[in-house]
Amino acid sequence: MAKDFPKRSEDYSQWYNEIVNRADLAEHSAVRGCMVIKPYGYAIWEKMQAQLDKMFKETGHTNAYFPLFVPKSLFEAEEKNAEGFAKECAVVTHYRLKNDEDNPGKLKVDENAKLEEELIVRPTSEAIIWKTYKGWIQSYRDLPILVNQWANVVRWEMRTRLFLRTAEFLWQEGHTAHATKKEAIDETKMILDIYADFAQRFMAMPVIKGVKSETERFAGALDTYCIEALMQDGKALQAGTSHFLGQNFAKAFDVKFTNKEGKQDYVWASSWGVSTRLMGALIMTHSDDNGLVLPPNLAPFQVVLIPIYRKEEEFEKVVEKLKEIKTQLEAKGISVKLDDRDTHKPGWKFAEYEFKGVPLRIALGPRDLESGTIEIARRDTLEKHSLDQSDIVTKVEHLLENIQSNLYNKAADYREEMTHKADTYDEFKNILEEKGGFIYAHWDGTSETEEQIKQETKATIRCIPLDSKLEEGKCIYSGKLSKQRVIFAKAY
Amino acid sequence: MAKDFPKRSEDYSQWYNEIVNRADLAEHSAVRGCMVIKPYGYAIWEKMQAQLDKMFKETGHTNAYFPLFVPKSLFEAEEKNAEGFAKECAVVTHYRLKNDEDNPGKLKVDENAKLEEELIVRPTSEAIIWKTYKGWIQSYRDLPILVNQWANVVRWEMRTRLFLRTAEFLWQEGHTAHATKKEAIDETKMILDIYADFAQRFMAMPVIKGVKSETERFAGALDTYCIEALMQDGKALQAGTSHFLGQNFAKAFDVKFTNKEGKQDYVWASSWGVSTRLMGALIMTHSDDNGLVLPPNLAPFQVVLIPIYRKEEEFEKVVEKLKEIKTQLEAKGISVKLDDRDTHKPGWKFAEYEFKGVPLRIALGPRDLESGTIEIARRDTLEKHSLDQSDIVTKVEHLLENIQSNLYNKAADYREEMTHKADTYDEFKNILEEKGGFIYAHWDGTSETEEQIKQETKATIRCIPLDSKLEEGKCIYSGKLSKQRVIFAKAY
Repeated sequence: MAKDFPKRSEDYSQWYNEIVNRADLAEHSAVRGCMVIKPYGYAIWEKMQAQLDKMFKETGHTNAYFPLFVPKSLFEAEEKNAEGFAKECAVVTHYRLKNDEDNPGKLKVDENAKLEEELIVRPTSEAIIWKTYKGWIQSYRDLPILVNQWANVVRWEMRTRLFLRTAEFLWQEGHTAHATKKEAIDETKMILDIYADFAQRFMAMPVIKGVKSETERFAGALDTYCIEALMQDGKALQAGTSHFLGQNFAKAFDVKFTNKEGKQDYVWASSWGVSTRLMGALIMTHSDDNGLVLPPNLAPFQVVLIPIYRKEEEFEKVVEKLKEIKTQLEAKGISVKLDDRDTHKPGWKFAEYEFKGVPLRIALGPRDLESGTIEIARRDTLEKHSLDQSDIVTKVEHLLENIQSNLYNKAADYREEMTHKADTYDEFKNILEEKGGFIYAHWDGTSETEEQIKQETKATIRCIPLDSKLEEGKCIYSGKLSKQRVIFAKAY
Repeated sequence: MAKDFPKRSEDYSQWYNEIVNRADLAEHSAVRGCMVIKPYGYAIWEKMQAQLDKMFKETGHTNAYFPLFVPKSLFEAEEKNAEGFAKECAVVTHYRLKNDEDNPGKLKVDENAKLEEELIVRPTSEAIIWKTYKGWIQSYRDLPILVNQWANVVRWEMRTRLFLRTAEFLWQEGHTAHATKKEAIDETKMILDIYADFAQRFMAMPVIKGVKSETERFAGALDTYCIEALMQDGKALQAGTSHFLGQNFAKAFDVKFTNKEGKQDYVWASSWGVSTRLMGALIMTHSDDNGLVLPPNLAPFQVVLIPIYRKEEEFEKVVEKLKEIKTQLEAKGISVKLDDRDTHKPGWKFAEYEFKGVPLRIALGPRDLESGTIEIARRDTLEKHSLDQSDIVTKVEHLLENIQSNLYNKAADYREEMTHKADTYDEFKNILEEKGGFIYAHWDGTSETEEQIKQETKATIRCIPLDSKLEEGKCIYSGKLSKQRVIFAKAY
């Protein structure tokens, strides 16, 4: 175990910070609230991007790029959206610096270079994109538009945490335009399915698909669908959202089209996004008191090979064999790192890659060469076995698959264990306090009740789950009639 | 030929704008100087990114991400760099908007949310990155750092042109840190070789490798290496730069390391970048009076398949055969689009894909089905042939290779034809005026002469070519001794 590394049970928050820091994932920068994503962390994000991008393209989407800045007059066009983001906007007011005559070598803002209209650094791109779509859409033949953008956005958060909440973050934002309401809703839901599929098959993270209550809806949306995951401290994390925007943005930017019958109508819209927040979710779902744990499907390298040796001559033979194994594994599409640096000892390397969550570690020494064996350690269970070298590729393939599904199952079991029903408010508060996790409870459907519960317990409605059965009951707070349980939790 | 499409010979600038516009590559946005990169244009950029990223990774580089903003005090730390960019900086001064009480529904900047220190939207990231590297580097064991970033940057240009010069653009910026001067210079040159290789093998664009004169050097660099290409109007375009930064940034940010001998020294640096400007270079290198021409290695789809039919029954048979061909081509890694929309006629599609520069167009009609033939048209030469369907995949492969090399050769021939030597200033001015292109001429090495020539002719020194022979001569302007010819041209 890494030195001085806090346990989850002792200080969960510190445990998270230390993993991000010591596993070289990210760090705070000199800019308030903005992070540096370090190469190892960024490599995980690149894996996420590549897979999501593939899934978007397979479903007919293309990428494009829209400006970083939104003129204030465009930004305020969709009022609810503007209101939702106004308080966290970075604003560009000037376009030039000049020498500060009072401080030689220093610069100051040139007051003569004030912009006529302020520019907002995009917190989200609906406004600038719908302004653009107006020029692209005349007829039903121009629809649907299925566009995604990979970009940075800025939301001036006062309390930031690496990956989970930062002033600048990276994300993808899809923005689609449709001829009918049904098509737009179908798109919104299809993307939700993609997000859930990605979370489960690649991140090995079970999620619940649902729809947000009005209070938690995206500013400017008619409906916000979401995937919700459960972290190891019993708090929920919203991992992705897909919004049905109705005709709100089309109306704000006057985007009409001529339908097949020759009549004019406003265009229907969806928007959807996941961000570098997924990195936080990934870290918190699987990691343990020994450091980061990565699912093989997103690990920058799935296998690390470490030579064990004393003499130079041993080193060469061992490394030769490891290179052979590396080639065999790579031929099967397995990503491998051979760490043959002589500046670090095997023990140091073992600790390093364990902490960095590499799914499989393979060590080979002179004795193994003689006996035809090899040592394999898996990160998820920390089990170590000496195996015969024969069929090593097949064995590694099976182990990686097994680790991927084991991580998913472990997380799913944890969620199961941490999911409760509450039928009274007392019961609800008890579970929240003693166990945390997801609580299925009846709610009367009003924002007032939701707000009261939030004030009193800090729990929010994570979602109205899509797959839940209708079930008559009474609101745990108001006692009024309810037709379905919703999911409450404290959340990130 | 597309309707009303201007010829290069008549209005080169308008010709360029119309290609960008009508081929759906990019457009101006509602934000001054910022562009929207449309899906078809972005797909080309993605191909460029993927290939460059592969080349960077194969040479040991990893990606990371650094903040969009640079606090003013960091920005001004390396004085030359700051001076070079100060006049074109977008500056964030506030972090909140509030309701404008005088204009219901409108927002205004909240004066109570003024930043203590202004934030510069990065025009380049040396400052924020070297501030970060200070925390990463203690010993020679931490070196080299070979990091690249794909990002957006902002330089407040007053005169903008899509792709060639925009206020916001996309690029990659590599930032490396080394223990020795030699290593840093080797890196700088290796990257230049990668850029040249990419330009030539993928963009089919011949380039000259050289080093900039002091005047044209990157602000803060000791040497700027570059690749220079020649456009069809006889103007040069700088397509990529690789800078040897010496210890300038290490000194500005106090980044020292302990070397193997246990002594402290400042770290050596390089930085290098190519941007969406390459899109402009690509367009101008190959396109003709019929629209865009794309080299197969960067075309979003290399082959378009178009069914010819009158009756529904014919349509089905023809499309069935085309789907078969598509599958065969894709199995060989060829990217194919089958346009079987019934909303557009074949003639319309022919014109559309010709304008969009798709390298090969394949058409198939009922008669072809009977005779076992197929019609193939190549975009570069506009030749059309009816071929036997047998071995169609091999034929397409050969044609694509042939188009790729033909485009390169054509561009190389043009450059050859447009490259001249001038031994007197009169000769120099005549060539510039009558022909344009690259002019090899002697220069006395002073910034004064360079500036005078620029003032009088608008030509600048593009580079001191790396591969040129030493040759004694006299400066065309001052008559002073010179040991080597440099390359002059008017430039983008």
